[in-house]
Amino acid sequence: MSLLVVGSVAFDGVETPFGKRDKVLGGSATFFSTSATNFTPVRLVAVVGNDFPEEHIDYLKSRGVDTKGLVRDKDGKTFFWRGKYDFNLNNCETLETQLNVFANFSPVLPDGFRDSEYVFLANIDPVLQLKVLDQVQKPKLVAMDTMNFWITGKRNELVKVLERVDMLMINDSEARQLSGEHNLVRAAKKIRAMGPKHLMLKQGEYGALLFSGDEVFRAPAYPLESVFDPTGAGDSFAGGVMGYLAANGAGTSELKQAVIAGSVLASFVVEDFSIDRFRRLNTNDIQERFKAFHKLTHFDDTLRLPKV
Amino acid sequence: MSLLVVGSVAFDGVETPFGKRDKVLGGSATFFSTSATNFTPVRLVAVVGNDFPEEHIDYLKSRGVDTKGLVRDKDGKTFFWRGKYDFNLNNCETLETQLNVFANFSPVLPDGFRDSEYVFLANIDPVLQLKVLDQVQKPKLVAMDTMNFWITGKRNELVKVLERVDMLMINDSEARQLSGEHNLVRAAKKIRAMGPKHLMLKQGEYGALLFSGDEVFRAPAYPLESVFDPTGAGDSFAGGVMGYLAANGAGTSELKQAVIAGSVLASFVVEDFSIDRFRRLNTNDIQERFKAFHKLTHFDDTLRLPKV
Repeated sequence: MSLLVVGSVAFDGVETPFGKRDKVLGGSATFFSTSATNFTPVRLVAVVGNDFPEEHIDYLKSRGVDTKGLVRDKDGKTFFWRGKYDFNLNNCETLETQLNVFANFSPVLPDGFRDSEYVFLANIDPVLQLKVLDQVQKPKLVAMDTMNFWITGKRNELVKVLERVDMLMINDSEARQLSGEHNLVRAAKKIRAMGPKHLMLKQGEYGALLFSGDEVFRAPAYPLESVFDPTGAGDSFAGGVMGYLAANGAGTSELKQAVIAGSVLASFVVEDFSIDRFRRLNTNDIQERFKAFHKLTHFDDTLRLPKV
Repeated sequence: MSLLVVGSVAFDGVETPFGKRDKVLGGSATFFSTSATNFTPVRLVAVVGNDFPEEHIDYLKSRGVDTKGLVRDKDGKTFFWRGKYDFNLNNCETLETQLNVFANFSPVLPDGFRDSEYVFLANIDPVLQLKVLDQVQKPKLVAMDTMNFWITGKRNELVKVLERVDMLMINDSEARQLSGEHNLVRAAKKIRAMGPKHLMLKQGEYGALLFSGDEVFRAPAYPLESVFDPTGAGDSFAGGVMGYLAANGAGTSELKQAVIAGSVLASFVVEDFSIDRFRRLNTNDIQERFKAFHKLTHFDDTLRLPKV
């Protein structure tokens, strides 16, 4: 089924303990769509500037991204972010943010995109997220991301978006901030009462936690010996989740598998800069790592207790 | 098979956001043995003072703890620890530590204990841990705990213990400190090269991670809505692990189940002060929660990918 993403397509300047890249392909919608297209085609709505090379657009097309909604604003440059990760890759210092053409971004869905059945609102201003929701006709499942900046800065608008979405994907600290609850089970209850039926907590090296219906599901993180560049892990996770759901439907069993699919894709993207690991990723790699995730958590169903 | 624990039996004064207890039964060996006895009898070596009530000893006996190695030192008082947890239960401030009779503790194994096949060295001075190892004859599996205090303060002695044990159970920050590696996969490699074949990392609300042979196994934590008192979670985990292994052997499948068994027991003990939750815990409760752990991580084995 059709999958739409609205977010950023950007240039990233990234420095990690393992190397440095000055101006590589980045942005939430880029990571999302190159991840999701492992499962299903993606419709992309974003904006780039006059400096954005055609080859990047060609590459997205070659993966099954419909770029009809990718606007080129000739009057400015592409959104640029530059950051530096510390030695442990746990903290990232933003060194530079040039919003450029993204500052005036107002998402417009091409006619052919308005019937999208699965929709992902990447981490952008909740006002823009609402604009997208006003343009989609009858989506089956809308998921969204957000961040501390919007939780504190545009809470009212964010609450309106939350009322209209089915799924929220955020990290632990965002969940705590949004709910005012430290305990994640209680935080999840409060957040789901605000709108989203499904909540996925992204927990980095500890995996992910899904709250859906009466169920809680824990996905492991893959124990990587070297994380090369964490940039885009969250959006690649979201892309894997939504790509899998759009391809297979959003039943309880599929939701769990989707969390693993997202975790699998996130575990790959951090192995190289930008989306470079995705460029050389095949179906077999994905299947193999999926099996490794299964092995990582599988245990025998029967606990042997002494007879009383 | 026989299971020995050497550690502390103590009084705890605990303050959490949910309440306060002045002088309740605590200590690493107490939590360990009341947890492990859900699976197998335990031999206990520890010291208490003249103020330790006989009813506590009777209770341990009633659970299947052999207290032949529990020495009563009439010249002093029982080890006392007092701590206060912060609002989030993540940080604990130690308000008072009275070593009392524990200051002169030198573990002596009664004759009947020297043939113990499974041995747990709780978090005590590595010099004492070595003394225990010198007294056991031919153990099948020795596991140990330690802490930052010994990693920095008695590193040489600790290294000697590590060379002689099969399994180490510590938390992430201890693993990082011991190995000098932030990445846990690399930390695990370095630590296992120091001696222990098996490494279990205790990750609190994120579960536990087992490194054994070529395998990595992730156990989830149970998503508790209220953690009442985290004291003793780590030792109850160790008790569940070692109790299960002593009862069922230490094959790869059993090791994974043992991590879950430990996680199950830890998830119960934090639901009340001291070992109070264990006092009203039955086999059925354990089976039910084990099943909940299975459900929490189980996902369908087959990832559906589009045909290429």
